[in-house]
Amino acid sequence: MFTTVLTEGPVSRVDVARRTGLSSAAVTKAARPFIEAGYLEELASGGRTAPGAGRPANPLAIRPDREYFVGVKITGDDLIGVVTDLRADVRVSAHHALAGHDVDHVVRALADLVGELLAGAGNLRERAYCLGVAVSGDVDRASGVVRYSPFLGWRDVPLAALLEDATGLTVTLENDVKALAVAEQWFGEGVGASSFALVTVGTGIGSALVVNGGLVRGAHGVAGEIGHVPVADGGPSCHCGGRGCVEAIASTEAILTRARQVTGEPALSMDDAVTRARGGDQPLREVFAAAGHAIGLGLAALVNLFGPERVVVSGEGVATYDLFEEQIRRTFAVQVFGSAARCRLVIRPLPFEEWARGAAAVAVQSLFVSDSD
Amino acid sequence: MFTTVLTEGPVSRVDVARRTGLSSAAVTKAARPFIEAGYLEELASGGRTAPGAGRPANPLAIRPDREYFVGVKITGDDLIGVVTDLRADVRVSAHHALAGHDVDHVVRALADLVGELLAGAGNLRERAYCLGVAVSGDVDRASGVVRYSPFLGWRDVPLAALLEDATGLTVTLENDVKALAVAEQWFGEGVGASSFALVTVGTGIGSALVVNGGLVRGAHGVAGEIGHVPVADGGPSCHCGGRGCVEAIASTEAILTRARQVTGEPALSMDDAVTRARGGDQPLREVFAAAGHAIGLGLAALVNLFGPERVVVSGEGVATYDLFEEQIRRTFAVQVFGSAARCRLVIRPLPFEEWARGAAAVAVQSLFVSDSD
Repeated sequence: MFTTVLTEGPVSRVDVARRTGLSSAAVTKAARPFIEAGYLEELASGGRTAPGAGRPANPLAIRPDREYFVGVKITGDDLIGVVTDLRADVRVSAHHALAGHDVDHVVRALADLVGELLAGAGNLRERAYCLGVAVSGDVDRASGVVRYSPFLGWRDVPLAALLEDATGLTVTLENDVKALAVAEQWFGEGVGASSFALVTVGTGIGSALVVNGGLVRGAHGVAGEIGHVPVADGGPSCHCGGRGCVEAIASTEAILTRARQVTGEPALSMDDAVTRARGGDQPLREVFAAAGHAIGLGLAALVNLFGPERVVVSGEGVATYDLFEEQIRRTFAVQVFGSAARCRLVIRPLPFEEWARGAAAVAVQSLFVSDSD
Repeated sequence: MFTTVLTEGPVSRVDVARRTGLSSAAVTKAARPFIEAGYLEELASGGRTAPGAGRPANPLAIRPDREYFVGVKITGDDLIGVVTDLRADVRVSAHHALAGHDVDHVVRALADLVGELLAGAGNLRERAYCLGVAVSGDVDRASGVVRYSPFLGWRDVPLAALLEDATGLTVTLENDVKALAVAEQWFGEGVGASSFALVTVGTGIGSALVVNGGLVRGAHGVAGEIGHVPVADGGPSCHCGGRGCVEAIASTEAILTRARQVTGEPALSMDDAVTRARGGDQPLREVFAAAGHAIGLGLAALVNLFGPERVVVSGEGVATYDLFEEQIRRTFAVQVFGSAARCRLVIRPLPFEEWARGAAAVAVQSLFVSDSD
């Protein structure tokens, strides 16, 4: 009930009842504690003042300023932090460079960043109790442990517990791509979609899938590895041990390696490659198109297998999406099967702050949903 | 509650409570109508006779002979029918050749087959009320309509309604691969697995995926199309319009076409190709191995994206699985990502009668689960 109002509201009790399958009376009953705690309010409708007892047609709305949430994304180089309201709208943001990957250093730096964020504006501190943290790699949300993070060189770090001690906040830890997917599911393209996929393109290529309203976590801890879908039999070797994986063709590093081969310039930078491709350099344009083709093949594999309503393609690699997008769409259109072609494909850049917002969205989710699936 | 006992029983009320999250008292209450209707019984435990009131430790068991179910698979050439008990164990089976694909003819032939099956043995007829029918293609289970069946040349045929008139039974219509997946989910490899995939290899190559306990149906009606996962960039053209699809390399027709090319014998039959490959003909062995390689790549795509607990590979094409299996497993092992390699891979032939059993399993499911997901 609450998540329906949170993600789709303001919405009348009648509509909530229809969408959740509850009776109108059950909705009223379920809403009462949230109204009493100040998370929900009943809006006036048709010129009347809202009576506390609740009329079915009066819309229920979230009170976004009832509580604030801190979200931090940890990268190999820095920490990006935001404070959001209940609807994951960003109110304050800040960055900190990391001097190293030592666990103690990262914990202290993160606690400092949180302190700075909450000192930033007005009464944020008095209404912020929850911190969401997003890290790439193998993260166990339930236990709050970073099982393996290649970028940080960490194994089995009980980060949530360390951060609870250091900040005094309730901490939820999540894989960064899954955190972004939660933000999309609750507050973005995923709202109202029973299934969707978020694909991130950049240093790595990954995805998070939502099916029947739940995140696909994988029975053995692996799911959404679109970067390791094999699309080019006999293609380039991938660090995973396979060949022809999407990531071996379309990751930032794979593109740069190929661009250096094609130009014969071993010191070519990515920025220069992008500038020259945009300027019309045909061999370099083809390197980006080949990456877009591999991404399009991977998307077709994903969509033909699980038929999502929508797919969002994002990530820092898509900052140059003008060089990819046409080929992604063309390849996808050729390889998608039958009516799966009706899947809506959204391709857009991803500001780095969005990753931190994803972490905050996970903190919001943790507060209201006991089972994160 | 009932499905737990049906698929995993006999099982004590305490265990049912643990698995379903219900209280022991709620299980007892939920079980009562099923016991009264004769679907469940309480077994004696510890040498005592089972009291009607129900002791938590006494196992609940299904009474498989309480009701029978008819399942029929329609192919382009014939009808395969079975009668099963409540646990989808086959009691009687029969085949009918089809003289054509005219809807009236198929409906009449199917009604005759059902009559014959139920006349077969003892008191089957008095306890059979439900018919499940499985057809390949685009089938809308909810409305009972065959939207599109390439093998039959049908579009928008309201088959369930026509068969209810012709047989007097309650009819459930389902796509054949999804029906097989229901049989696996309820009575086979899928029991107790929160996620699994069934992949069928033969004239076509398809799959059905179960994630978080529910069948993935696809927001736009398409899902599980592993046959149209592109695995060989620039590979052979596929009838779907794409290139390098698994089906374009590993379907029965694709294998035969390639075998004829390799041998230079345009009239080579599949049986001869299989015999000679088994006899050690190296070029022909490589044709089958290439098919196994493509299937292995498709399986890696599926498993890296979904991370199912188990995968069953089956279908009439796997009757010759001695020629595929080694290469399927080898390619899968190279391309599967990280701990997804722990996914259990079962490769086995599929007797044609199994398709009809899948249809019967769908009829069982329809009787007890209102939402088939």
